[in-house]
Amino acid sequence: MTQPTIRTVAVVGAGVIGRSWIRVFARAGCETRVFDPDREQLARALDWARNSANEDEALGFIDSGAAGEERAIRCDTMDEALSGAGWVQESGPETLAVKQRIFAELDAVAGPGTILASSTSAHDMSRIAAGLAGSGRCVVAHPVNPPHVIPIVEVLPGEGTRPDVLTAALAFLESVGQSPVQMNRYLPGFLLNRLQAALIREAVFLYGSGAASADAVDTVVREGLGLRWALLGPFGTGHTNADGGAGDYYRRYGDAYREMWRELEADPEFSDRVIDGIHAETERMYGTSATEALCAWRDRLVRRIRALKEDDPPPCRSTPGSRR
Amino acid sequence: MTQPTIRTVAVVGAGVIGRSWIRVFARAGCETRVFDPDREQLARALDWARNSANEDEALGFIDSGAAGEERAIRCDTMDEALSGAGWVQESGPETLAVKQRIFAELDAVAGPGTILASSTSAHDMSRIAAGLAGSGRCVVAHPVNPPHVIPIVEVLPGEGTRPDVLTAALAFLESVGQSPVQMNRYLPGFLLNRLQAALIREAVFLYGSGAASADAVDTVVREGLGLRWALLGPFGTGHTNADGGAGDYYRRYGDAYREMWRELEADPEFSDRVIDGIHAETERMYGTSATEALCAWRDRLVRRIRALKEDDPPPCRSTPGSRR
Repeated sequence: MTQPTIRTVAVVGAGVIGRSWIRVFARAGCETRVFDPDREQLARALDWARNSANEDEALGFIDSGAAGEERAIRCDTMDEALSGAGWVQESGPETLAVKQRIFAELDAVAGPGTILASSTSAHDMSRIAAGLAGSGRCVVAHPVNPPHVIPIVEVLPGEGTRPDVLTAALAFLESVGQSPVQMNRYLPGFLLNRLQAALIREAVFLYGSGAASADAVDTVVREGLGLRWALLGPFGTGHTNADGGAGDYYRRYGDAYREMWRELEADPEFSDRVIDGIHAETERMYGTSATEALCAWRDRLVRRIRALKEDDPPPCRSTPGSRR
Repeated sequence: MTQPTIRTVAVVGAGVIGRSWIRVFARAGCETRVFDPDREQLARALDWARNSANEDEALGFIDSGAAGEERAIRCDTMDEALSGAGWVQESGPETLAVKQRIFAELDAVAGPGTILASSTSAHDMSRIAAGLAGSGRCVVAHPVNPPHVIPIVEVLPGEGTRPDVLTAALAFLESVGQSPVQMNRYLPGFLLNRLQAALIREAVFLYGSGAASADAVDTVVREGLGLRWALLGPFGTGHTNADGGAGDYYRRYGDAYREMWRELEADPEFSDRVIDGIHAETERMYGTSATEALCAWRDRLVRRIRALKEDDPPPCRSTPGSRR
């Protein structure tokens, strides 16, 4: 991994997302200053981060001895957390008014060169930072849970975000080992949740309409589409499906896709009956509860898949690691 | 792997899908009898299958010495291919009239206990086998390209398909190492291509509308959603995203999903401009052509991901290997 382009960062909000960000930054060698107004949550997050680092060392995901070098610092005030920080990662409650209040405080407290990033999955930075003197340094950096396992981060400017801040945000996130992608303008759900919602809508329809069991629908993704999508997105997959590449594929099957798009269900039944049925079948597939063990398994295997890709990258990628 | 429940099979049609089926059956220990009216295509398919087995042995995907034991037999006539076969896998051209003609011939030639399966991705078995005396033994078994790498097979009965034939088809495909799933009735695109089309539609919209680059959209899947979907389908993913499992997750976020579903684009621009742009960016990401090397890389890594899952299965799956 390269050196982080920003050496001191603040994590503000230490819930499930915030604590995982601690790992991302601390693992990359950043001095990571952590604040949460809830003292108990703050203490739990720092404990979790330390345990998580030790587990990663035991599993071989980080070098022997590296866990002890991850520097996360407990801060009792916002001022203390932001002291010297070049990047702030805000991961507070997902409510616009709360985000606005936090950003007003961050903008008042942070030094002039500090970038203020929000983990929001829902809100437009144009609204979060509206009216702030420092709206130019505010940007959305939306991770996928948990960011220390899944590398993608969606980076969205607000209307007032300065271009150099956007560039610096992408470079910093890449330098700590994430895969930042830029979204040019706000759309509800950003990229990832829109793509996920599109798949889920059709999955709900296929189950709810009786076309197949929930198990069958899940298996089609897990043992079919998902095996390719872990390696190549929809455009990359098309590129391997016709001799002339993606253009050839989409031109050849363009009409077939347009026809199928007309078949897809826009508003599937998503009633208690359907949700209860999905739940019952999903329990049969993966166990009674959304257990820690299941999540730990998922995270372990995601990281092993990433390691496979790092050890054996695609043969013809023109710019290795090109992600934007 | 268990013993195949049917020991002698015929592969009829030896193009890209047919030749990969040869590997599936031969690798599982079936006597695999291969026919294609195009003699050159037949010869090429058998050469390909032999080379593919040797490559797999070199890569460690099959045991040392196993490549030489895969039994594929070149047959010069349909009668010869079907002699003694308990399963026929038809992989001819994707045209209804052609499929009907082939199935009429198969039904006339095959012994009474033989199951007749079609690799079709588009047609309803009710129509392919309409009017045949043996329509009860006809079933769709649609693989994903290439089936010797990607295990999912969609199994669809026609209106006339006998229940015992459906059951035997699912059991046989599982016994040769595939992951069959049952679809209860015909819908255009079946399960897999509908789910794929749903994702591609939104991907095309996000790129074509200027919300993000094609690279960003592809990366969101490859370094985000796809890493989870290789392990858990959409319902399984929901199961890990809330304390109470899938039901809790979909109930909690049901309104958010319904809202986002209303935002998704039903009919995105899919013009030459959009397709050319996708092609150019995809080439920059993955190289100039849809090369053999890129496909070989994809297939190698898909199989390594499958091996990861076999070596470290999910902790609480109630029925290991339950796939329906």
